[in-house]
Amino acid sequence: MPSDAAEDLRTAADRLDGQALGAELHAMVLELFPICRSITGEGLRRSLRILQRAAPIQLHEVPTGTQVFDWVVPREWTFRSARLRGPDGALIADAERLNLHVLNYSAPFRGTVPLQELQKHLHSLPDKPALVPYRTSYYQEAWGFCLSEEQRRRLTPGEYQVEIDTTLADGSLTYGELVVPGAQPDEVLVSTHCCHPSLANDNCTGMAMCAAIARLLGGMRPRYTYRFLFVPGTIGAIAWLALNEQRARRIAHGLVAACVGDAGRLTYKRSRRGDAEIDRAVVHMLAHSGQEHEIREFAPYGYDERQYCSPGFDLPVGSLTRTPYGEYPEYHTSADDPGLVKPEKLVDTLRSYLAVFEVLEGNRAYINLSPKCEPQLGKRGLYGSVGGQSHAAASQMAMLWVLNLSDGTRSLLEVAERSKLPFTDIRRAAHALGCADLLAARDPAGERRA
Amino acid sequence: MPSDAAEDLRTAADRLDGQALGAELHAMVLELFPICRSITGEGLRRSLRILQRAAPIQLHEVPTGTQVFDWVVPREWTFRSARLRGPDGALIADAERLNLHVLNYSAPFRGTVPLQELQKHLHSLPDKPALVPYRTSYYQEAWGFCLSEEQRRRLTPGEYQVEIDTTLADGSLTYGELVVPGAQPDEVLVSTHCCHPSLANDNCTGMAMCAAIARLLGGMRPRYTYRFLFVPGTIGAIAWLALNEQRARRIAHGLVAACVGDAGRLTYKRSRRGDAEIDRAVVHMLAHSGQEHEIREFAPYGYDERQYCSPGFDLPVGSLTRTPYGEYPEYHTSADDPGLVKPEKLVDTLRSYLAVFEVLEGNRAYINLSPKCEPQLGKRGLYGSVGGQSHAAASQMAMLWVLNLSDGTRSLLEVAERSKLPFTDIRRAAHALGCADLLAARDPAGERRA
Amino acid sequence: MPSDAAEDLRTAADRLDGQALGAELHAMVLELFPICRSITGEGLRRSLRILQRAAPIQLHEVPTGTQVFDWVVPREWTFRSARLRGPDGALIADAERLNLHVLNYSAPFRGTVPLQELQKHLHSLPDKPALVPYRTSYYQEAWGFCLSEEQRRRLTPGEYQVEIDTTLADGSLTYGELVVPGAQPDEVLVSTHCCHPSLANDNCTGMAMCAAIARLLGGMRPRYTYRFLFVPGTIGAIAWLALNEQRARRIAHGLVAACVGDAGRLTYKRSRRGDAEIDRAVVHMLAHSGQEHEIREFAPYGYDERQYCSPGFDLPVGSLTRTPYGEYPEYHTSADDPGLVKPEKLVDTLRSYLAVFEVLEGNRAYINLSPKCEPQLGKRGLYGSVGGQSHAAASQMAMLWVLNLSDGTRSLLEVAERSKLPFTDIRRAAHALGCADLLAARDPAGERRA
Repeated sequence: MPSDAAEDLRTAADRLDGQALGAELHAMVLELFPICRSITGEGLRRSLRILQRAAPIQLHEVPTGTQVFDWVVPREWTFRSARLRGPDGALIADAERLNLHVLNYSAPFRGTVPLQELQKHLHSLPDKPALVPYRTSYYQEAWGFCLSEEQRRRLTPGEYQVEIDTTLADGSLTYGELVVPGAQPDEVLVSTHCCHPSLANDNCTGMAMCAAIARLLGGMRPRYTYRFLFVPGTIGAIAWLALNEQRARRIAHGLVAACVGDAGRLTYKRSRRGDAEIDRAVVHMLAHSGQEHEIREFAPYGYDERQYCSPGFDLPVGSLTRTPYGEYPEYHTSADDPGLVKPEKLVDTLRSYLAVFEVLEGNRAYINLSPKCEPQLGKRGLYGSVGGQSHAAASQMAMLWVLNLSDGTRSLLEVAERSKLPFTDIRRAAHALGCADLLAARDPAGERRA
Repeated sequence: MPSDAAEDLRTAADRLDGQALGAELHAMVLELFPICRSITGEGLRRSLRILQRAAPIQLHEVPTGTQVFDWVVPREWTFRSARLRGPDGALIADAERLNLHVLNYSAPFRGTVPLQELQKHLHSLPDKPALVPYRTSYYQEAWGFCLSEEQRRRLTPGEYQVEIDTTLADGSLTYGELVVPGAQPDEVLVSTHCCHPSLANDNCTGMAMCAAIARLLGGMRPRYTYRFLFVPGTIGAIAWLALNEQRARRIAHGLVAACVGDAGRLTYKRSRRGDAEIDRAVVHMLAHSGQEHEIREFAPYGYDERQYCSPGFDLPVGSLTRTPYGEYPEYHTSADDPGLVKPEKLVDTLRSYLAVFEVLEGNRAYINLSPKCEPQLGKRGLYGSVGGQSHAAASQMAMLWVLNLSDGTRSLLEVAERSKLPFTDIRRAAHALGCADLLAARDPAGERRA
Repeated sequence: MPSDAAEDLRTAADRLDGQALGAELHAMVLELFPICRSITGEGLRRSLRILQRAAPIQLHEVPTGTQVFDWVVPREWTFRSARLRGPDGALIADAERLNLHVLNYSAPFRGTVPLQELQKHLHSLPDKPALVPYRTSYYQEAWGFCLSEEQRRRLTPGEYQVEIDTTLADGSLTYGELVVPGAQPDEVLVSTHCCHPSLANDNCTGMAMCAAIARLLGGMRPRYTYRFLFVPGTIGAIAWLALNEQRARRIAHGLVAACVGDAGRLTYKRSRRGDAEIDRAVVHMLAHSGQEHEIREFAPYGYDERQYCSPGFDLPVGSLTRTPYGEYPEYHTSADDPGLVKPEKLVDTLRSYLAVFEVLEGNRAYINLSPKCEPQLGKRGLYGSVGGQSHAAASQMAMLWVLNLSDGTRSLLEVAERSKLPFTDIRRAAHALGCADLLAARDPAGERRA
């Protein structure tokens, strides 16, 4: 049997220097954090260029006005500065210091407004009075500021000076893409959103982790073709799907990566199909992770799995995160800062992605070439020679399971599921049996690669 | 989209004056209670005529001797009086005071019998010594009395005077029927038994509630045709099925109503099919009722679902009751009196029936007309314009679910089940999406009505 | 309806004299226990000849060198004696006293070896220091002794005298077979392993119980043909399957019997199919046994179900044991002696096998000949004449269930499963309904027997 990418992935994962990688990923988060990103514009481009240092991501531009299914690519937003000053001239909010202060996609505005009028343009969180919220207005032209509720309550009547120096003008939407070619044209999609400004876990972490995974896979010869998308949320995923409709049909498995660095447990949200191979691969990986974790059903809310799983595509794309969308108290507020991100959790999530890809890469159906009764493993050196012991070694159990279930219809993942043994053990048992000519891949064409 | 009966039902349910309806239903139970009903005879006819005041129920007569499948319609029972006097002439039991005292369908008898002989004709409940049981002998000619065990134990040796003034003679079996025509020929069956004498919850309540539901539906233009059957138990349902075999094939959904007014929780017994649309509709309704309730598997015992679910018909007919058949201590005894019946529970059960019919009426499959990625709800005023919030409003979640799952194969009930949202929300979301031309009914023929 | 073997089995089981049978089975275990059995040889033949006293088992010989699938029948092992003496000439181990002391299938050896060299040939259990293990070396020529860890630790340096008087030479493998012919050619397989030397529960119990069941069935005229195999583990089952490949295809149901006399609860390990009729029959039997028990999924480890359930055969063969393979502390040690075997547990397991066979024998699909509504059971004397009681008798419920579900596609086992009533009640209800011409077997050919 040829050496394979599944084993390469396992080896790479086992050899990772967690400490060094954690430090590198956290440094990338720190560098990305202060940039004022949005669904279009220079902040997004700058961020993608930072990621290009880690992996050869290609940048694509989709012009303003492009129809993408039911949507139209909006005018490009250029942000320069945004300041709010009080009746006494004191600086109340300055996006220079915290870019969440400006309503994301705010129209330009310069002028003086009384407090009563200003209030219509302010956003705050009455139940989290110390935090500044993240708010956007992409498709309805508006200007505004986001403040902490505490700050807002302290505002006194009077005239406020607004200076929002932005431009909304024809331009383009930018997204990043990186393809690692595989032996097969079928693709594994990894998609992450890049539009959020100063929110560290959501989603500087996803951007950094995906770039690192892309770099790592780039050094391998995988079975599947891997496509990494770094897209602005919603409109970016929609634009890619609209412009790549045929290509999208090749996506065999996919994951949406976001919020991958907080201290919370790993959480998997199933694809719309619910029991696709990607769903089973992640569930298996989590079951053997030795960690607390959570599996959730699909729901048409959250990140870009909403688009990949729309009924016109129904792609087998789930989402593997730590604490999911909207469920940690710092979510979409100024408290989602780099301190919330734990280097060791970033590495743990990255390892989990690799373990899932190991399953996908190694998951094939085999045929037992000696299917009538058990073959005599002992004479091939695959079984201990002294009998009578009450328990077989784990590697022997894995071989017995592979032999028993390999009738050409069941994949190794199914064998791993039924035997409750880790996929790696099952995969290696299949390899050993293959080397002993006791097992053959059902579809030898699938093996046609170095 | 046309206005529809599902919304009409919801509106009607929301506008019900519970107090007034409860009082009306309880008054009907009080009026029905003292009548000596049986599976044939004048008591049954009088009862149905009382129900006719509430709704235009038609009375049908099936002559004695009519073969109905394996059964024959028995001679008609005419009851006039039944008295048992002791050796000293004292009145021991008088059906005038409590019609349970006479063995239902008792043959006429007049004479004097010694205690030892009398005992063979007495029925009592050793484990509920204060209560008079309800007993019948429809198909084996016999005479008898039902007494409390306490009274029976006090009987002393001697000669007892029996006067049972009844007639068993050719006549007919009576049942009531009311059809509310709908846009479609497919029918919803509501069946209730009317043969029990002075037992309030079982089943004066079912009779009263069904008449009230029939009146209410009579004022609407439903999608389904509703057929209400007021039949004597077993033989009445068998007679209707035998005489309406072709019509029975049109029954798409059905419920057997009985014991609907006691203080116990709502209990649903599934149809023989187990997962028919009626089963799923009731289970969904109960799950969202906010009340304790119980779901049970089908069993070939109980009320007339036994006949509707016989293998030669296998109709999708379940039974929605409060405390089921045989499970409350007063069941089939003199303690099942109007005091056991709670007006507010009668109304609650009636509302539950309406909620089930709302599901049936509104349950259709739709097609998302913009299935590739999400349509832009915001530009249609269906979605808030300020983004970044972590939770969508319930109505928006309902729209996203309907869009995501509407591929023409899934019904709205399936969407409600998977989303765990109330059917009403899902139905209204589908309506709003339809109005925005984002959704179409899969089978427009099904919509062909005002 | 003809009298049938299912009823005969029930009657036989009800009439068993448990005490006498328990004593007989335990005596057989005591007689088998001291014999030095192996997968070939005289000990195995002597044991099978003891079983022949209970039932007419035929002995078969498969010559050394016969290719049986991936395996070859090994040389026959003749054991005469094995003694180990210390430097001082003291007897350390003598297989005469406990035949576990000799490594089973040990090659002959006579000579003097220093302690260091001897150690390579010794087997003991560090975690059970007082017990002598059972160890084998069938397919790799080796000599050796099994000692308790305590004894082994007391060995002092010096020269040890080894006398292993055995022969490995061409001969044959012996197995026993008994066929009870049935009305149908489809077979029920009962297989038990006979190769273990002085281990009482594993598997003198299985040998004794199977012989007793074979004797009992031999006096009946069952529907199925019953095949009892008394085979050396692994190689014996493989040899039978290789030499009877076509015959094996007739096996409709099967059980592997082993460890059937210890005090543990009954444990069923499902066949590879998981939900075959044999699996459902055993699960049903256990559910109604009134005893604690355990159901386990199939795994390709354990006894000869490994071979019967290999993918090239995939026979519906499960394993009904008490404490399973490897899970009691005395397993494969000198502590698995006749004291571990409880006569009453042997009888209980035997009864359980009979109850399973009752299900298999009686399990047929029927057609309700009066499927539209319920037939009137009362006029046929099958139902009480006085109505109004709240609960039907168990026998009436069984009849109602059989009538309701008998549409020609469902077997009585399915009716028993859904109704949660014992199979015997369901079977007898079907018999009563058949006698009343209300029910017919779906496949009358299946009934073609006395």
